[in-house]
Amino acid sequence: MSESTGTTVLVLGSDPPPKLDRLAGRARVIFADESSLAGLLPTADVLLAWDFTSDAIRAAWPREGPRPRWVHTASAGVDRLLCPALIADDTIVTNARGVFEQPIAEYVAGLVIAMAKDFYGSWELQRQRRWQHRETLRLAGTRAVVVGSGPIGRAIGTTLLALGVKVDLVGRRERAGDPQFGLVHPSDALNDLLPQADWVVCAAPLTDATRGLFDRAAFARMPPRARFINVGRGPLVVEDDLVEALRGWRIAAAALDVFEREPLAADSPLWDVPHLIISPHMSGDTLGWRDALAEQFQDNFDQWSAGKPLHNVVDKRLGYVPVQ
Amino acid sequence: MSESTGTTVLVLGSDPPPKLDRLAGRARVIFADESSLAGLLPTADVLLAWDFTSDAIRAAWPREGPRPRWVHTASAGVDRLLCPALIADDTIVTNARGVFEQPIAEYVAGLVIAMAKDFYGSWELQRQRRWQHRETLRLAGTRAVVVGSGPIGRAIGTTLLALGVKVDLVGRRERAGDPQFGLVHPSDALNDLLPQADWVVCAAPLTDATRGLFDRAAFARMPPRARFINVGRGPLVVEDDLVEALRGWRIAAAALDVFEREPLAADSPLWDVPHLIISPHMSGDTLGWRDALAEQFQDNFDQWSAGKPLHNVVDKRLGYVPVQ
Repeated sequence: MSESTGTTVLVLGSDPPPKLDRLAGRARVIFADESSLAGLLPTADVLLAWDFTSDAIRAAWPREGPRPRWVHTASAGVDRLLCPALIADDTIVTNARGVFEQPIAEYVAGLVIAMAKDFYGSWELQRQRRWQHRETLRLAGTRAVVVGSGPIGRAIGTTLLALGVKVDLVGRRERAGDPQFGLVHPSDALNDLLPQADWVVCAAPLTDATRGLFDRAAFARMPPRARFINVGRGPLVVEDDLVEALRGWRIAAAALDVFEREPLAADSPLWDVPHLIISPHMSGDTLGWRDALAEQFQDNFDQWSAGKPLHNVVDKRLGYVPVQ
Repeated sequence: MSESTGTTVLVLGSDPPPKLDRLAGRARVIFADESSLAGLLPTADVLLAWDFTSDAIRAAWPREGPRPRWVHTASAGVDRLLCPALIADDTIVTNARGVFEQPIAEYVAGLVIAMAKDFYGSWELQRQRRWQHRETLRLAGTRAVVVGSGPIGRAIGTTLLALGVKVDLVGRRERAGDPQFGLVHPSDALNDLLPQADWVVCAAPLTDATRGLFDRAAFARMPPRARFINVGRGPLVVEDDLVEALRGWRIAAAALDVFEREPLAADSPLWDVPHLIISPHMSGDTLGWRDALAEQFQDNFDQWSAGKPLHNVVDKRLGYVPVQ
């Protein structure tokens, strides 16, 4: 019998995971929704934040008494669950690193090409049944600034490099001698990089240091040809400032997959801002993703049961899994 | 004085090239439109087919008497100018190999990702101000059949490989030991490759052997998940058969950049076929392309003037520049 016998796994989520069958006989699995979470947290050894869009954990995390020793979130970002009490205690937090990188990199590459080649213009012309040849942008040789040097930012950068784009990767602190990107720029280099950018891609974690990073001043540093893409978290961008930059032709276009408030309300003014492409927080969500997330949690549960180190341990003070 | 003094260069095109200044003092440059072409051809040593969409050369090529010794076309395909008389005589034909490969490869990669990630669905939902999350396709690990093993097909294949797609390249004849693709499949292998394809990309030259290659039988060989892209020439596809395949859900989607008749008429039924993306023959035409084409012709004129071998010599019987 493993030492985890008697372990209680609490799953937060109205849609339960597709299957947690590898836990059968090894753990008691109970389910919580946002209203029952606070009452059940003291009974659980492990919390699986399956509904990663919920802010309930932050509100319900016990300030004293029994609590889960391990929290796993089925997302890359941990901004929705970290709170001072959880940061302060010795509960381990792990994330879904490994599931979303490649899909998000593909998605961003597609957006970049779609904007370079004016697919949106072609589609509108098709609706109007109009044949109107245009000259578009050659991607190779253009320059991208990718903000976020974690696995997602790196995958985006790698994919853009493969398309012939010059990539400047920006992280929290400078790292020299990166095998793929040479120098990883520190965050305070961003201001000097933005004026040269054809593409600015935001894939940073949401932390106190990055909230509102893309504001009026940042958009003013970009050249008029710049296109901005956010696949990180909504609050990294000051949406009003982006709208102002687009309406004032300060930058050429933007694509948002994440928003300050999700889902975006039907009456949001964002839907019809010119040159703004909107998608519903789906850049990383490819067919089978929920199965992959459930497998990943169970792999980590195997580690936990065997008393081995967990994978994807978040540095709770930084707010992400540090790159080695 | 070079031996080309006294050379007459005839340019076919209503929009003349941006600049042919490197010919100044070295050649007499005269211009023809479709109606004056036949009368001027006997006076020219060199013909520049700048308007590469015209069929006029085929009709006007002299069957006897003086004629250009060299024809350069500002396009990759030579299907519009080759005719039995031109094939039979010793006039050299050169093309624009080198200008379009990378832009077309980028364009195709963009279409592939746009279809994988349902950008078109997202755009329609944005118009309707609807937030509707969907799971989309992970590109890496899917399989593409690229028909056409010339420089454009190879560039498309290389770009898809970089995105993690498995690529089967199909040429006229089998070539083993290709450094990038391993085996280049012969054309008669196509039938066996189509059933495994997630993506079928047509980038073949238009010749007697390839005309109508993608017909009802070919679409029937593709699986229902297949998406078809044509960036070659319109008549490679039997358009009615493609429409039937799309309307009958035999394949999932298609994108056409080239058509049997261009420009596509406003009343063409193609404009609103479901899951058919239409663009106006622009996949290779990036900003500065006309300058690049003019430079390329002038580079070859330097070769001609110096009595050196011309670049990009078309095998007139094959209908393209053979890959070494």
